[in-house]
Amino acid sequence: MRAPATLVTGIGQLVTNEPAQRSAGGVERLGLVTDAAMLVSDGLVVWSGRADELPSSDAFALAASDADVVDLHGATVLPGFVDSHTHLVFGGDRSAEFEARMSGAAYTAGGIRSTMAATREATDAELTDRLDAFVTELVAQGTTTFEIKSGYGLTVADEARLLTLAARVTDETTFLGAHVVPSEFAADPDAYVDLVVGEMLDACAPLARWIDAFCEEGAFTPEQSRRILAAGAARGLGVRLHASQLAPGAGIELAVSLDAASVDHCTHLTDADVALLAGSSTVATLLPGAEFSTRQPYPDARRLIDAGVTVAIASDCNPGSSFTSSMPFCIAVAVRDMGMTPAEAVWSATAGGAAALRRTDVGHLGPGARADFVALRAPSYVHLAYRPGVPLVDGAWRAGTRAA
Amino acid sequence: MRAPATLVTGIGQLVTNEPAQRSAGGVERLGLVTDAAMLVSDGLVVWSGRADELPSSDAFALAASDADVVDLHGATVLPGFVDSHTHLVFGGDRSAEFEARMSGAAYTAGGIRSTMAATREATDAELTDRLDAFVTELVAQGTTTFEIKSGYGLTVADEARLLTLAARVTDETTFLGAHVVPSEFAADPDAYVDLVVGEMLDACAPLARWIDAFCEEGAFTPEQSRRILAAGAARGLGVRLHASQLAPGAGIELAVSLDAASVDHCTHLTDADVALLAGSSTVATLLPGAEFSTRQPYPDARRLIDAGVTVAIASDCNPGSSFTSSMPFCIAVAVRDMGMTPAEAVWSATAGGAAALRRTDVGHLGPGARADFVALRAPSYVHLAYRPGVPLVDGAWRAGTRAA
Repeated sequence: MRAPATLVTGIGQLVTNEPAQRSAGGVERLGLVTDAAMLVSDGLVVWSGRADELPSSDAFALAASDADVVDLHGATVLPGFVDSHTHLVFGGDRSAEFEARMSGAAYTAGGIRSTMAATREATDAELTDRLDAFVTELVAQGTTTFEIKSGYGLTVADEARLLTLAARVTDETTFLGAHVVPSEFAADPDAYVDLVVGEMLDACAPLARWIDAFCEEGAFTPEQSRRILAAGAARGLGVRLHASQLAPGAGIELAVSLDAASVDHCTHLTDADVALLAGSSTVATLLPGAEFSTRQPYPDARRLIDAGVTVAIASDCNPGSSFTSSMPFCIAVAVRDMGMTPAEAVWSATAGGAAALRRTDVGHLGPGARADFVALRAPSYVHLAYRPGVPLVDGAWRAGTRAA
Repeated sequence: MRAPATLVTGIGQLVTNEPAQRSAGGVERLGLVTDAAMLVSDGLVVWSGRADELPSSDAFALAASDADVVDLHGATVLPGFVDSHTHLVFGGDRSAEFEARMSGAAYTAGGIRSTMAATREATDAELTDRLDAFVTELVAQGTTTFEIKSGYGLTVADEARLLTLAARVTDETTFLGAHVVPSEFAADPDAYVDLVVGEMLDACAPLARWIDAFCEEGAFTPEQSRRILAAGAARGLGVRLHASQLAPGAGIELAVSLDAASVDHCTHLTDADVALLAGSSTVATLLPGAEFSTRQPYPDARRLIDAGVTVAIASDCNPGSSFTSSMPFCIAVAVRDMGMTPAEAVWSATAGGAAALRRTDVGHLGPGARADFVALRAPSYVHLAYRPGVPLVDGAWRAGTRAA
């Protein structure tokens, strides 16, 4: 017999991301249930469905136990957001750079180096305090799983330090020594790549789940990126890649050829890139905050979805190009400016993010899933796009425990 | 001697909107003070400035009194947002219409009639409960002054009813009987205008501060709008107008000719319109949420500001075309998509909104102003645009009293 611990009831609309048919698209893929309930035990969903269809054996067990009952009074419940792309361990402040850019200056990758300098100078305590504040902020906005990259250290010791700090708050740590070439290697970028795939990888591989690189003009070439990703893969790290943010390039082909879990940005894609992605198990992760905050053109999610590509949405939270941590905001922008429907955007910010992290335990709310869920002060998931900027998240639970 | 009641201290950055020179533009117009404090008495600001420049007479009086001290620990403080354009008294739900539009359907003014039907059916208690929830939501997001329009009743009794409900929560009530021609007058719109300027105005003028009309193809012609606004002005109501949302038209000229406090939307302006506004005391109120939520092109705030027009930003919160109530969101979009700098957008959402309501008591934090202010979890006002979607408002005070 199950040992139910919590009955979540009064769910006006439940997004399960468990469609009756695996091939379901559009709204169908959300697996919506109205007037729903959910049983949680040991941090997992053991049952979800229409409240009036709760199995009688469960109802009996509940009545006989001291199960908690959480009544959500008609709220919308959806899987916690899965933010598969963040850069949350950093020092310094770049609001002046943002203000200058919004008054006419151009965005370049160069600003990464200013954060690098400030991050190297920051103490562990300073970085930890800020990271903890970000985690609080993320969870309050409904994000229950988040990836964090290194990439503002760019020395062996600093990259390892950032990953150690990140690992305190998430299992989804990514070694991004190849974020940008630090100025001390400006004359010989390949020497920096040697360091990344050598001593730096030795120090960082045990601390990370993923390896990533920024494959773009001004950062790393496709050849350098391939070398770095292959070295990480050989050490057992999963592969992900920043590519095609500012212009088309060879990054998509590289990511697919290495069976990357995700290739991120995907703003400038050729038809061949789209076809490659559609024929692969690599997720295209779109980062609406980056285009929003750099006034760049948005990627065309519609084109990707129509071609059969799996699309995720993530925040790219970082102090330079996208300082939002709000997945609801990203959903609203994806609907406004990337051609997604509200249902597609909500799926991409939950199940899509899980796919981008190759996680099957999060991003959905069927039996066996982690009980990571969010309650909205709204009658429908649609309100995440319909009410942009309005804080609708009324509570967040991680592994069945209230976290915000 | 003054009777100080509250000393607000620990203000890392204070936006006073009190520049040293009245003609100050850009960041200068925000009248920024760092390491600031503010003295509040009887709901008014009696002094604001650098904490180390607090006048010794005030310091002495404070020491001798039982004044409260509010320590904001380095927060940014700015005047509460002034949202000069909302439609918050309504019944029904239009999330399905929004979802359909975001899946390809066109936006028309026709949807107003569906809210009208639901509003007429709603009880006073239903409308009041929802309105109270909106007020809570607005204040939690830092809005301390807000206008509310009627316009979903469109009968004598229903328009008066909506204004009565709105007047419970704000002094800034606007009679918008001329929102759209209700279907029962479709065959003879001028007969509806007769009703608006006759019996409906008789009932509503005592309940409203302002008169407004929707001057647009599909709503009211410039001639009808002029008749309505002039009738309201003759009854002592201030004039405001919805115009040039979907196409250029004669609305701007009409608004300026009637010395309207504000003309709202201003999305499609001719050079002549811009020149007229620049030579007038009519504010151009831009509504970023409306273009965001209808996928329409944005107005060009840069062009207006460069021409010398006073620009306000408001939410247009309504269930059809803009269901955001978030002024921070509107600021972020105005910066991203309307060519405003962060400083201009913050000014327009505070002092600009006050100008659009011809209020001198709100929208700034110098001596004599109402102590309506907001504390941000951020080191600078810039973060309102730099961190889009993130709930940064950590507290809001209305007339010196904490309201959120």
